[in-house]
Amino acid sequence: MENNFELKFSESAKGMKASEIRELLKLTAMPEIISFAGGLPASELFPLEKIAEAAKTVVEKDGKRALQYSTTEGFVELRNVIMEQRLKPMGINVGLESVIITSGSQQALDYCARVFVNKGDIIITESPSYLGALNAFKASSPEIIEIEMDDDGMRMDKLEEVLEKEGKNVKFLYTIPDFQNPSGVTMTSERRKKLIELANKYDIIIVEDCPYKELNFDEAPLPALKSMDPEDRVIHLGTFSKTFCPGLRIGWIVANPTIINKFVMLKQGSDLQSSSFDQLLTARFMENNDLEDHIAKIKEVYRKRRDIMFNAIDKYFPEGIKYTKCTGGLFTWVEVKPEMKSKEILEKALEKKVAFVPGDSFFPNGGKTNYFRMNYSCMPEEKIEEGIKALGEVLKEYYK
Amino acid sequence: MENNFELKFSESAKGMKASEIRELLKLTAMPEIISFAGGLPASELFPLEKIAEAAKTVVEKDGKRALQYSTTEGFVELRNVIMEQRLKPMGINVGLESVIITSGSQQALDYCARVFVNKGDIIITESPSYLGALNAFKASSPEIIEIEMDDDGMRMDKLEEVLEKEGKNVKFLYTIPDFQNPSGVTMTSERRKKLIELANKYDIIIVEDCPYKELNFDEAPLPALKSMDPEDRVIHLGTFSKTFCPGLRIGWIVANPTIINKFVMLKQGSDLQSSSFDQLLTARFMENNDLEDHIAKIKEVYRKRRDIMFNAIDKYFPEGIKYTKCTGGLFTWVEVKPEMKSKEILEKALEKKVAFVPGDSFFPNGGKTNYFRMNYSCMPEEKIEEGIKALGEVLKEYYK
Repeated sequence: MENNFELKFSESAKGMKASEIRELLKLTAMPEIISFAGGLPASELFPLEKIAEAAKTVVEKDGKRALQYSTTEGFVELRNVIMEQRLKPMGINVGLESVIITSGSQQALDYCARVFVNKGDIIITESPSYLGALNAFKASSPEIIEIEMDDDGMRMDKLEEVLEKEGKNVKFLYTIPDFQNPSGVTMTSERRKKLIELANKYDIIIVEDCPYKELNFDEAPLPALKSMDPEDRVIHLGTFSKTFCPGLRIGWIVANPTIINKFVMLKQGSDLQSSSFDQLLTARFMENNDLEDHIAKIKEVYRKRRDIMFNAIDKYFPEGIKYTKCTGGLFTWVEVKPEMKSKEILEKALEKKVAFVPGDSFFPNGGKTNYFRMNYSCMPEEKIEEGIKALGEVLKEYYK
Repeated sequence: MENNFELKFSESAKGMKASEIRELLKLTAMPEIISFAGGLPASELFPLEKIAEAAKTVVEKDGKRALQYSTTEGFVELRNVIMEQRLKPMGINVGLESVIITSGSQQALDYCARVFVNKGDIIITESPSYLGALNAFKASSPEIIEIEMDDDGMRMDKLEEVLEKEGKNVKFLYTIPDFQNPSGVTMTSERRKKLIELANKYDIIIVEDCPYKELNFDEAPLPALKSMDPEDRVIHLGTFSKTFCPGLRIGWIVANPTIINKFVMLKQGSDLQSSSFDQLLTARFMENNDLEDHIAKIKEVYRKRRDIMFNAIDKYFPEGIKYTKCTGGLFTWVEVKPEMKSKEILEKALEKKVAFVPGDSFFPNGGKTNYFRMNYSCMPEEKIEEGIKALGEVLKEYYK
């Protein structure tokens, strides 16, 4: 009998589509492309020597543990480092039983969907929202309700309307409060307070995705939602991917122990544990070095690159184009005329060797085609100017 | 409003239970326990110096790539090493497009369930089967049909009966053909041929889990099912966890590219990629060292430990107890009188500071209580003798 594998795939697998971002990453690997498409940290800033030292210490002093199976929750010493160095300074004071190590925040997003969502359940997200989160969520076939954003973040009036009507059926609300991906927008303090208030009133779990908070260029970061959470209903996702390096795939979830317990059981079946070696390497690095110093360095570089991008946009883009004047993070978000199609713009931009991510897929339910996302963190300064200039020429064709 | 997280969990999460093996691992961490419970490789055999060298080379020569995001499929150089060194010698000749790197085989098991299984679909397994696989599968709420085993592996007559009746509804058949976990049994050549024949006849996908094949102590390994697969319907799972080290979490799936493509899309949403660092470290180690030498060393040690365990069983266990005279791998499987309860035996054994895994949870649909699994790979020789002697005293109480 001839095989036809498509017939055997699960409903969830049949619905899977390749992520545009990942497909684009392949494209951006070509050296001649000036790419604003990725979300990569600048690899020239990785503290290689110190990482080499940490790796040496781990193998020499702790090799057997680093190469053996370990617990699903993650090494206690790594969780302690995260609690002390990353969480406490944000005002998040929790015990070990509230923290699990994940293989990057992407795994945490997948786990949130798997632990909470049955087919047809409601997830609330910002509109637009992070494509990788939407892809992870969609594997559980939810209904996603998008809440409009403005310059202050998710609109709480719109949210309350939805909660009033659908609150009971909402499994969680997903937000990236700081320098949101893709929009670059930060939720104001007032909105954060209101969001917690609404979550408590309507019994909503909040998933706070927090990869960029510490990449603030201009102002002190605003409080984490998890630090304002008297009912312990915020699930806080953290990662070293943007502040240290993504290749080690070390992230964490902070949540109520009842929820962490489910994540642990899911992780047992899903991959047993994150890499013992990478966990100990990260712990050792954090114990023996000051990550704050490193973050200060990369922020300085990213801030400059952002400034150059914004200046170039103001200089080379046609008038009438809006973009987010983000104050940190990795991305800005561009809005062009409603009748324009960002995928078509990308095709033309690629002819000029410039890439970005069309905004369409960041809208969970589609329908908006006149936005695109640009990253400024991983291109050298002169390339940013050159790329924006070339992109400006493409855009001017539409604004004649 | 008071939160009640349990109410919000998905059906799948509500059904999750902590794995007994993982809970037991915590117990075995106590140094006074003689543990036959784990499935750990012997950490004293890890080639630490050579791994330290490989780690140094990776950071110095390839640091930026090792710490940056990479592709979901896995580094080409690692997949090439696996194809050349692990697959070709097994007679598995495939191209890059048929191989994806996973975070250990546990992730591959989770992915098989997610890509193929809707609630209520049938999965066929050996009876007993690997607990970690069963836990991964159960997250998709399948019906699991168990096929009886004898000393030659899964019984093909019983399998054909099931396929005749249920073939259309079977999503895949899961087997560990070599030194099966937990039973220690190896499927004969004849049964392998018959299995492929039946799979082709009834259009069944086979998931071949292959972590132990290269740990053969007494005879040459039998052919991999994937090497006898004219219709490309075998999904072959491999890992370095038992032949190299588990802490780096490097496994792989070999399958038809249509299936691999689904795994890639699932992995994009589930964790983006496995650790860049661990992938390059593994590739470098394999390029610069002969893993066969290392495997020969660990086999020598494990073979001795197995012999000591078997001799001790023959000496100290009461007559009438059956166990698998396995010819490789990490486990033997003990059958006691039908009325005995292995969980009760474990409680008594723990009083004497000896641990094993009760067999109950290895039966997907439960109901068999008079089996237990013993591991011999990670206890020093004198401890094995001592532990089996103590366990024999416990067992003798039942055989007076």
